[in-house]
Amino acid sequence: MAMASSTKLLSLVRTITKHMIDDGGFGKLMDKVNITSAGQGWCSAEMIVLHEHQNSGGTLHGGLTATLVDNVSTLALMTTGSGVPGVSVDMHITYTKGAKVGEEVIIDAKTLRVGKRMAFLEVELKKKLSGELVAKGLHTKFVG
Amino acid sequence: MAMASSTKLLSLVRTITKHMIDDGGFGKLMDKVNITSAGQGWCSAEMIVLHEHQNSGGTLHGGLTATLVDNVSTLALMTTGSGVPGVSVDMHITYTKGAKVGEEVIIDAKTLRVGKRMAFLEVELKKKLSGELVAKGLHTKFVG
Amino acid sequence: MAMASSTKLLSLVRTITKHMIDDGGFGKLMDKVNITSAGQGWCSAEMIVLHEHQNSGGTLHGGLTATLVDNVSTLALMTTGSGVPGVSVDMHITYTKGAKVGEEVIIDAKTLRVGKRMAFLEVELKKKLSGELVAKGLHTKFVG
Amino acid sequence: MAMASSTKLLSLVRTITKHMIDDGGFGKLMDKVNITSAGQGWCSAEMIVLHEHQNSGGTLHGGLTATLVDNVSTLALMTTGSGVPGVSVDMHITYTKGAKVGEEVIIDAKTLRVGKRMAFLEVELKKKLSGELVAKGLHTKFVG
Repeated sequence: MAMASSTKLLSLVRTITKHMIDDGGFGKLMDKVNITSAGQGWCSAEMIVLHEHQNSGGTLHGGLTATLVDNVSTLALMTTGSGVPGVSVDMHITYTKGAKVGEEVIIDAKTLRVGKRMAFLEVELKKKLSGELVAKGLHTKFVG
Repeated sequence: MAMASSTKLLSLVRTITKHMIDDGGFGKLMDKVNITSAGQGWCSAEMIVLHEHQNSGGTLHGGLTATLVDNVSTLALMTTGSGVPGVSVDMHITYTKGAKVGEEVIIDAKTLRVGKRMAFLEVELKKKLSGELVAKGLHTKFVG
Repeated sequence: MAMASSTKLLSLVRTITKHMIDDGGFGKLMDKVNITSAGQGWCSAEMIVLHEHQNSGGTLHGGLTATLVDNVSTLALMTTGSGVPGVSVDMHITYTKGAKVGEEVIIDAKTLRVGKRMAFLEVELKKKLSGELVAKGLHTKFVG
Repeated sequence: MAMASSTKLLSLVRTITKHMIDDGGFGKLMDKVNITSAGQGWCSAEMIVLHEHQNSGGTLHGGLTATLVDNVSTLALMTTGSGVPGVSVDMHITYTKGAKVGEEVIIDAKTLRVGKRMAFLEVELKKKLSGELVAKGLHTKFVG
């Protein structure tokens, strides 16, 4: 596709996110996620860790981290003009540091490669204040 | 610890699950999950895929699959007498087949190995009716 | 394809392994691996951990473990009548216990699912004597 | 430890690499790998894909890719003053594009985080000429 402007892509990503929320499915938790910027192949978002997001240790639940990796990387993929969200084949998350309730995390997703069949996406979660890495995810989707 | 009976371990796992739900954190989605059996190092559960669990394609959301892998494997770990839920260091999910809204999935978690420092857990999600594999997860936790 | 006999599949797998070795590529290390049995979707092998296989700690090198996961799971895939070895998209290895030089390991690979596009394979490495799990691998290939 | 100079760390990494090769274990394949630079927490290397490195498709074998991820990330870890190579607990590789025999690949490893117990490392393999990503790896080690 022709290179879309960042403004158009941010608008696109926010529209898709709204659909995720309105659909009433598991994507509804995106209503606590603020999409801050997007461009060709990438997407950035922010979220404050709330009580409803915590695990038994009072930090961001690993399953929610995985869900954010899944959702935000799919948004990044949608900016490439793939036209489809694809289907997950593998997702790997490495958890480097806990994020406590009240801390704000940045979620940066980018497309490593998108081909005719497969898309490879990467996500970093960092603490907004300190920049410390919370988690790193790799997400592989079938898009053929 | 002395070998606990399956009845005691099932009771233990159900109590921990109730705490997850009552805590009001991300574990509250366990209120849709039915713990069916448990033993030394393993735990089995069932869940009907509901509209609230779906992705944009109408199947079980990959982030929820990851959350189930996380939670049910942690329950399996707790049956080993570790006494602690541990902290996730890595989680990998392979998605083999979609599960549609209305389908029931079985979640089988088992402990591959638990040492003084690390615990290695494995989870299979299968369709209850057909036995088809929906996803396979590996979860590594620090327990030291 | 019609269900092939285990004898035929074992013969097929051994022939492919011989090609791996004769090719002079990285598969040549399969000359230390003994294929013991094979069937529809699975393959088993054995290897004694030699000095040439060790890491600096005197145990089976994690890169060789990954290579065994790759190769033996590809052999398992070839028994399904896929006709092609496919191309790796993701491989995950969980290392549960070291295997020392002199110990014999069993490598069991099976096909979790093979579709038109993707194949999902799983491998367990165990110590032959004690049955202890050394590593578990998940391997996803594109076969379309 | 006090911040070591890049020259000292490059010298350290090359010495460790020489030990890997001289040991006669699986690390001996590092004799085809050229360590080009190193610093606090990271290490870069280069390798020309040779016939002896290929899979049946004539590209860099996925098991060798995994071995390079393992070895070069361990070198990166050793620059942090950890003093120990650690023990692998998880390794994940995403394969984005094949590298043909004759192509040169760059291997960039960096430390995401190293704590008292766990170290988290990341590796990128790229084609030197085109910059195309060949593979991305995440490697988690126990260092406690």
